Amino acid sequence: MPSPTLAVVGATGSVGTVMLELLSSRRNVWGEIRLIATARSAGKMLTCRGEQLVVRELTAEAFDGVDVAMFDVPDDVSAQWAPVAVARGAIVVDNSSAFRMDPEVPLVVPEVNREVAGYRPRGIVSSANCTTAAMIMAVAPLHYEYGLRELVLASYQSASGAGQYGIDTLHDQLTKVAGDRLLGSRPGNVRQAVGDDLGPFPAPLALNVVPWSGQLADLGWSSEELKLRNESRKILGIPALKVAATCVRVPVVTGHSVAVHAVFASEVTADGARQVLRNAPGVILVDDPEAGEFPMPIDAVGTDPSWVGRIRRAMDDPRALSLFVTGDNMRKGAALNTVQIAELIAAEISKRGES
Amino acid sequence: MPSPTLAVVGATGSVGTVMLELLSSRRNVWGEIRLIATARSAGKMLTCRGEQLVVRELTAEAFDGVDVAMFDVPDDVSAQWAPVAVARGAIVVDNSSAFRMDPEVPLVVPEVNREVAGYRPRGIVSSANCTTAAMIMAVAPLHYEYGLRELVLASYQSASGAGQYGIDTLHDQLTKVAGDRLLGSRPGNVRQAVGDDLGPFPAPLALNVVPWSGQLADLGWSSEELKLRNESRKILGIPALKVAATCVRVPVVTGHSVAVHAVFASEVTADGARQVLRNAPGVILVDDPEAGEFPMPIDAVGTDPSWVGRIRRAMDDPRALSLFVTGDNMRKGAALNTVQIAELIAAEISKRGES
Repeated sequence: MPSPTLAVVGATGSVGTVMLELLSSRRNVWGEIRLIATARSAGKMLTCRGEQLVVRELTAEAFDGVDVAMFDVPDDVSAQWAPVAVARGAIVVDNSSAFRMDPEVPLVVPEVNREVAGYRPRGIVSSANCTTAAMIMAVAPLHYEYGLRELVLASYQSASGAGQYGIDTLHDQLTKVAGDRLLGSRPGNVRQAVGDDLGPFPAPLALNVVPWSGQLADLGWSSEELKLRNESRKILGIPALKVAATCVRVPVVTGHSVAVHAVFASEVTADGARQVLRNAPGVILVDDPEAGEFPMPIDAVGTDPSWVGRIRRAMDDPRALSLFVTGDNMRKGAALNTVQIAELIAAEISKRGES
Repeated sequence: MPSPTLAVVGATGSVGTVMLELLSSRRNVWGEIRLIATARSAGKMLTCRGEQLVVRELTAEAFDGVDVAMFDVPDDVSAQWAPVAVARGAIVVDNSSAFRMDPEVPLVVPEVNREVAGYRPRGIVSSANCTTAAMIMAVAPLHYEYGLRELVLASYQSASGAGQYGIDTLHDQLTKVAGDRLLGSRPGNVRQAVGDDLGPFPAPLALNVVPWSGQLADLGWSSEELKLRNESRKILGIPALKVAATCVRVPVVTGHSVAVHAVFASEVTADGARQVLRNAPGVILVDDPEAGEFPMPIDAVGTDPSWVGRIRRAMDDPRALSLFVTGDNMRKGAALNTVQIAELIAAEISKRGES
């Protein structure tokens, strides 16, 4: 049986670009790789696995012969086109939030719950939200050891979570504020220096932190904060998990971080948690503060795992741990997790072919 | 009776500079104002209340005739010199952490616990840590309404928390990273661009977040994290308050923010909490995310109050609130709180003179 055909939908976007890098550097399991994007980008030439590939326009016919299609496009585009790809015979791995909470769509982080990827009555598998993915890599192994009951989360999310537009906006703002030593010390002067071009953010990001991302959902919560709650519950299979998250954008290019306070059913120790995380797949333990070892975006960017450190048992609750996690939101938080799921399905297809 | 004499010890530092600004702009309650600093800065001329004042060297004699002495100097300098000032007849208001946990030294945030400022057997009153001060302004009124039981905190602390050296370091690093659009997208390249000059920080701060400030204390906790726990307990008078804090430095010049998750004895509502905070002294409520209203450093810098917003009742616990607080760490977090305490004592001295 020939190797399966893969489509990359949204190939020209910032996450699509990382997908092509990953497909070029990982062990190859694919036959044809087909790049798909909106009409605006159709005809562009991109490199993948050393081959020059022409980007095709997103049409129903583009999916003919495709076994697996990875989507990284806006929610509404996924909602419209993923079922079209499925109707043409593809299995879709979708990185938007369009299907994540659908009970007939598995929500997968392979290191945590790969076993659910096979049940997909709609032909669609969802990949987790970027912040959730980084955080859950550290929390899931601790859950299996101690039994998770509650999460209190505060995020430090980077500009690239808002795509290339977010990255460009932060760089433009940095150029405007750098060199003036008074900026940031007087009220309003960062707003004045940055001007009206806020890009995808609701406020200037340079020299600031912005406690808002996503849209207003219920009762003052942002959509991003609810994703952390709902997706954590679904991925870990704990429908009653208590989650309270505050999502904050910080002036970092790439790398989402989360301050995690996790309460468990049984007592924990910091050393025990370190031992669990040292053996966890897809996790790097960096936990020696005096030696300058803690997770940070400038180190985690461009790497695959979740970086975990600052592990402390709560002084006032022997069942609670505080820790800090950083992951590359373009990789584990997006392209990497999606590619990993696609590879799981490729292995399933190959196995089916052999039997 | 003449107006009391005030000494400002550490007058040439970054907090001292803000103290002089505040003394120049607030209602004047002082007679002579005497500026004191280490020998290195003695002889400098500084402006306060429109007068040119010469900075005196820190000696025992410099405190002769001083009624109130505000100290903003390193812990070891306070530990040595505050008792000297007291021996010469001054009441000391100290902004270091040297005396904060001493049971014979009151730890004061005037809006919260001004009544304890009068009991000072050592002649010393301590002003709270910068992050604690901003946070407690919002949490204390909620405690009086609902009965606080637990705090889970994650901070977003600015460079100026590390003084002028911190501000200068961040500005230098920003100049080095601005203009290169690839920086922050590749592993290690921010470290390379910033070079070895990390200033007072353990890692590059530009385009990064650094989950460490202070020194290593017990069991992996930083001294800064323990201050939030110990000072909150003392200021609120709740010795058994459960506190778990993670302190993180962010590339902001001035303005410390805290994501607060607070658990109370009784049920809360977001609207009820908003009402409490709308009426709280020294607090500005900014809580309309869709209109872009939430607390941020670029707005709070240069202002006196704590900015509070993003108020949400926890979805999974009717007794818990999540909220976000930002305050100017040079003002309420340092100079302002110290000046306010000194003014309380000035009023006490004047009243004593009248009776």
